[in-house]
Amino acid sequence: MKNAYILLADGFELIEAMAPYDVFCRGGINVKTVSISNSKAVSASNKVQVTADLLWDEANFDDADLIYLPGGYPGYENLGNDPKVGALAKKQYESGKLLAAICGAPTVLLKNAIAFGKTVTSHSCCADEISAKYNYTGKFTERDGNLFTAIGAGHSQDFAIEIAAELAGDAAVAKIKKGMELK
Amino acid sequence: MKNAYILLADGFELIEAMAPYDVFCRGGINVKTVSISNSKAVSASNKVQVTADLLWDEANFDDADLIYLPGGYPGYENLGNDPKVGALAKKQYESGKLLAAICGAPTVLLKNAIAFGKTVTSHSCCADEISAKYNYTGKFTERDGNLFTAIGAGHSQDFAIEIAAELAGDAAVAKIKKGMELK
Repeated sequence: MKNAYILLADGFELIEAMAPYDVFCRGGINVKTVSISNSKAVSASNKVQVTADLLWDEANFDDADLIYLPGGYPGYENLGNDPKVGALAKKQYESGKLLAAICGAPTVLLKNAIAFGKTVTSHSCCADEISAKYNYTGKFTERDGNLFTAIGAGHSQDFAIEIAAELAGDAAVAKIKKGMELK
Repeated sequence: MKNAYILLADGFELIEAMAPYDVFCRGGINVKTVSISNSKAVSASNKVQVTADLLWDEANFDDADLIYLPGGYPGYENLGNDPKVGALAKKQYESGKLLAAICGAPTVLLKNAIAFGKTVTSHSCCADEISAKYNYTGKFTERDGNLFTAIGAGHSQDFAIEIAAELAGDAAVAKIKKGMELK
């Protein structure tokens, strides 16, 4: 079973974090949310409060097949301003394992000099700064090697299914789609 | 500002409850989650724990422009087995205000003899029982008067946008789509 960690900072975008959680669970991926603060209680950008599965120190990221960074304001800034998040994302990417960022979260990569020059997308509000160091396309989703990026909340579910296909294969995706009534 | 209430029972489907919350917030709708139990802590079918905005007795449903019933197992059964939920849904529908149910939640309508004979959809697992009392179509989403239904989790976002269009109008939908990067 593959292991996926979704990092939660206060101000995370609700669908961007919850859609992949749901999709990954349905695909038989062992997914955990991890709070980057000292509390498991984390508030989304729209104030919904979610209890993370793990505190940072409880997570064993060595087994991470995927690290997933949601966007949302100010969630993605909180991720980008936390050195431990940047160090983890950099280690994950440079080890060749999957790293995913959606919406504003590609700026976390930018701040930490991760994967410069690669082909990515992000929310249009970050297009200029991302374009300075990446091949920015503005597509709904992008993949360049082990780096997955997506443009924004409306594409969270499709993005998660693309990642699940890589982590868990076509049979898992078929199961996900059947349960969710996707054709 | 319109008021929407999303009813949460243990075992609710995560995307089915959180996508409309997110979409409605973005559309300027005053949305609240309401726990049907004695605790604001509610666990989704995939075990994600969400803190509801309100306990049942804290909610003033008299101002409800929308009552929304998520599916998820056993969440929709827990909704269907709770008489206060059935009474609220029936009052909402019969007053001509909007009532929405997705996935397995149309069975809550069935158990409470709400809107018999109307055109609806639901998760395919409930198609037979729903067909006995409704005009079941199996479409992704349906609307019949003030009753909105949807087939399952994968269509939560589109369903929420359709309801937001009715509650808050085209300008709100344009704002929702822009923020979520939907074209």
